[in-house]
Amino acid sequence: MLRSFFLTTCKQYTQARYLHHKVVTRPQTIYALSSSPGKAGVAVVRISGKSAKEAINKMTLAPGGITDPRKAYFRRIRHPFSGEVLDKALVLWFPGPHSFTGEDSVELQIHGGNAVVKSVLGALHEMTDFRMAEQGEFARRAFDNDKLDLTELEGLADLLNAETEVQRRLALRQAEGGLRVPYENWREKIVKCMATTEAVIDFGEDENIEEGVMDQVVADVIELRNLIAGHLDDSHVGEIVRNGIQVAIVGPPNAGKSTLLNRLAKREAAIVSDIPGTTRDVVEVKLNLGGYPVVVCDTAGLRESTDLIELEGIKRAKSRILSSDIKICLLSLDGDATIDPIVKDIIDKDTYVILNKEDAAKNTKDIANMVTRLEKETSAKTVWTMSCTTGQGVDKFLTQMINILKNKFDSSIGNPVLITQARHREHLEECVASLNTFLNMPDEDIVLSAEELRQAANALGRITGRVDVEDVLDVLFGQFCIGK
Amino acid sequence: MLRSFFLTTCKQYTQARYLHHKVVTRPQTIYALSSSPGKAGVAVVRISGKSAKEAINKMTLAPGGITDPRKAYFRRIRHPFSGEVLDKALVLWFPGPHSFTGEDSVELQIHGGNAVVKSVLGALHEMTDFRMAEQGEFARRAFDNDKLDLTELEGLADLLNAETEVQRRLALRQAEGGLRVPYENWREKIVKCMATTEAVIDFGEDENIEEGVMDQVVADVIELRNLIAGHLDDSHVGEIVRNGIQVAIVGPPNAGKSTLLNRLAKREAAIVSDIPGTTRDVVEVKLNLGGYPVVVCDTAGLRESTDLIELEGIKRAKSRILSSDIKICLLSLDGDATIDPIVKDIIDKDTYVILNKEDAAKNTKDIANMVTRLEKETSAKTVWTMSCTTGQGVDKFLTQMINILKNKFDSSIGNPVLITQARHREHLEECVASLNTFLNMPDEDIVLSAEELRQAANALGRITGRVDVEDVLDVLFGQFCIGK
Repeated sequence: MLRSFFLTTCKQYTQARYLHHKVVTRPQTIYALSSSPGKAGVAVVRISGKSAKEAINKMTLAPGGITDPRKAYFRRIRHPFSGEVLDKALVLWFPGPHSFTGEDSVELQIHGGNAVVKSVLGALHEMTDFRMAEQGEFARRAFDNDKLDLTELEGLADLLNAETEVQRRLALRQAEGGLRVPYENWREKIVKCMATTEAVIDFGEDENIEEGVMDQVVADVIELRNLIAGHLDDSHVGEIVRNGIQVAIVGPPNAGKSTLLNRLAKREAAIVSDIPGTTRDVVEVKLNLGGYPVVVCDTAGLRESTDLIELEGIKRAKSRILSSDIKICLLSLDGDATIDPIVKDIIDKDTYVILNKEDAAKNTKDIANMVTRLEKETSAKTVWTMSCTTGQGVDKFLTQMINILKNKFDSSIGNPVLITQARHREHLEECVASLNTFLNMPDEDIVLSAEELRQAANALGRITGRVDVEDVLDVLFGQFCIGK
Repeated sequence: MLRSFFLTTCKQYTQARYLHHKVVTRPQTIYALSSSPGKAGVAVVRISGKSAKEAINKMTLAPGGITDPRKAYFRRIRHPFSGEVLDKALVLWFPGPHSFTGEDSVELQIHGGNAVVKSVLGALHEMTDFRMAEQGEFARRAFDNDKLDLTELEGLADLLNAETEVQRRLALRQAEGGLRVPYENWREKIVKCMATTEAVIDFGEDENIEEGVMDQVVADVIELRNLIAGHLDDSHVGEIVRNGIQVAIVGPPNAGKSTLLNRLAKREAAIVSDIPGTTRDVVEVKLNLGGYPVVVCDTAGLRESTDLIELEGIKRAKSRILSSDIKICLLSLDGDATIDPIVKDIIDKDTYVILNKEDAAKNTKDIANMVTRLEKETSAKTVWTMSCTTGQGVDKFLTQMINILKNKFDSSIGNPVLITQARHREHLEECVASLNTFLNMPDEDIVLSAEELRQAANALGRITGRVDVEDVLDVLFGQFCIGK
């Protein structure tokens, strides 16, 4: 009896979850240019909504009409009222719910010329109850119609924004349900524990309740708590890769930091001069290193100074060092081989040290001495030599950097469930906190403890987007372009 | 007997036409991004060639594969060798010859993110015998496989380049065979006349030749010559609309010509100052007036001058007046109402005169006087008043300009066969010249006259592209983007 009660409760929760987020009625049929604007061989116009099929019937007077779903018909596209031929196009009809939005949808593949696109969009505009889609509105309708959950939509937005292979891989996995599946699974387990707890509350004194049922709930919650806490302990790899790996180039003035940045960027991103202290602002350059998205920044040279603007630059350099994922310290071989204490301070075991101006070094002994000094005075463990001016050693450095990125991120990226947004982390932390509160409650507070489990389940539900999500939706859909 | 001989000869000619232009063997399968590059909801990648189907088999490991032609399958796209999932996409297969190129073709509708597009194009690059398409190569294959003739391809290129409604309409009609059909029809008629003439040459003394057969040929050639000559007498409307209608703004210095140009352009296209002679170079602005593509140009003010640069500007202004389709002469109402003879010279019955600086006119009588003077001293028939500075009268002027364009071009644009390129005109003129030579030949030169008809037929054949066309192909396909 208790078992069937459990199942009913679980089902009710699952249904409630969907009912909670009621689909807002948006009766209009929307359309948009879904491919990128600009002259091209082909342009894709998408239409979604209950009158989508009507559009093709009015705009293609083909004998027999468009009968087969998902089949490409080559048809003349006509103005719905004047009948003027606008273009010849491929027409596809995707009947709901088997479409991206879940609604009746139509796709027109027209010629990618400005006047053609304009005439077709203009003709759609004149259809009754048709309007141009808002930013991300196709995606929003897909969400409203339960085609995709929030994490999948976030993955989709990331996929469109992905600039490198690693970002694409991460985003695609999430778009295909990489986060939805485990989070919904965990959430269902918590709901099950909650249902058991509520049953014990209601029927606690009934003889039908089996012995030790609450012990099992506690064991399950401990297991889940450990699982989610372990999931949170991921060194933020997903978020770092999604936003770009922050690499800071630091060091004393005139060590060649800006020259290195320009060489990596392959353009004059930062101003270079012989005058120490030329760089003041943090100059950023986005790079794709072996598929990894990297944001390299050049910073002001570190030294004691009284110049107010330089001091502000040094302050910003230090702040950037703290927030960077990888630190590269550039030292010059053309000086007297002493290391300024202010520079020495920032070299730790995770700092990669480059001895620059190899071409200006007097002899190889000098280089060896510098390396020895570094080993003795700092904890730096990886030291390269190069010349940013001649380019000598730069390719080797890049190859090694890619290896470092691989070692640092690859094993984690291989992890099928990877948190990619601060939003996920926040809700997961709320979930763990609620589970911990539940576990720390004295037995007599069992009535309150069910509420903690409900909060834990809701925290997970907010990630996938079936609970209290209206406020995060606008932020998310704003990331899409019009036509998706 | 003669009839069947004619038919055979006609057929041989038609076959020869196709054999002449032998398809160059291009065994490789080509691919390209056919939609516009840049972040968007969707990007379209097209593949054409004998291994196109193999690409989908290797890149989608879907159960059952892609079996139905022209049907959209939602599939994971995988790297053909590593098997890594690159994206989830709509896949369509268009088996040859029922495709744009006439070859086996595949279309992938992938997510329009930079990394996604790059990964899919990169994966295709690794397939054996696959390579990125060259500019216009899809169109070229369509031509090679007799899917489209030259005029249709030119229409397609114009359709992609069309910026206004009228251009789009003209281009679409041509892309759909608006020129091919009549030109091929005329060509076939000439070939028939030629076949008759050759039959008379070969069997002239045979009793089987009917009486009066050559008289009929002459009558047919006269009819065709008149038809084609009439077609050539079209005031170049097609070419004008394709290239943009040239409108020259002319007049004395300081009449407000540059102010009018800037007002039409809605930006500071030309430098404006109170100093007469500010404009020297011809400044061009492209406009869309009621669907008509218009190129408005501002020119140097016309006056007697000794300044060498100003004289060069006036020379250019005059040259532009000669080559323009519409002339607008601006006169100022703030002066003494005399018209410089150099300005008077260029006002003819096709010149539209604007009396500018209406706001600066002392009273309406002055305006009336100026109009009377214009009527007496020049042949100008359309005179407007306006103020380019305040904008008064500008909207009315634009409305009337659109009406003028309609009157001037609409009836001709309605003509189903409209020459749009100088290349067509040249070959049509060759054709008429050959027909005239044929008609002027004495009867005893009948052996030579067949050659004239052959040349006339070839001239038409060069327009549609089945004869001697290799030299014009590169120019044509260079107008397409990669991916079409």
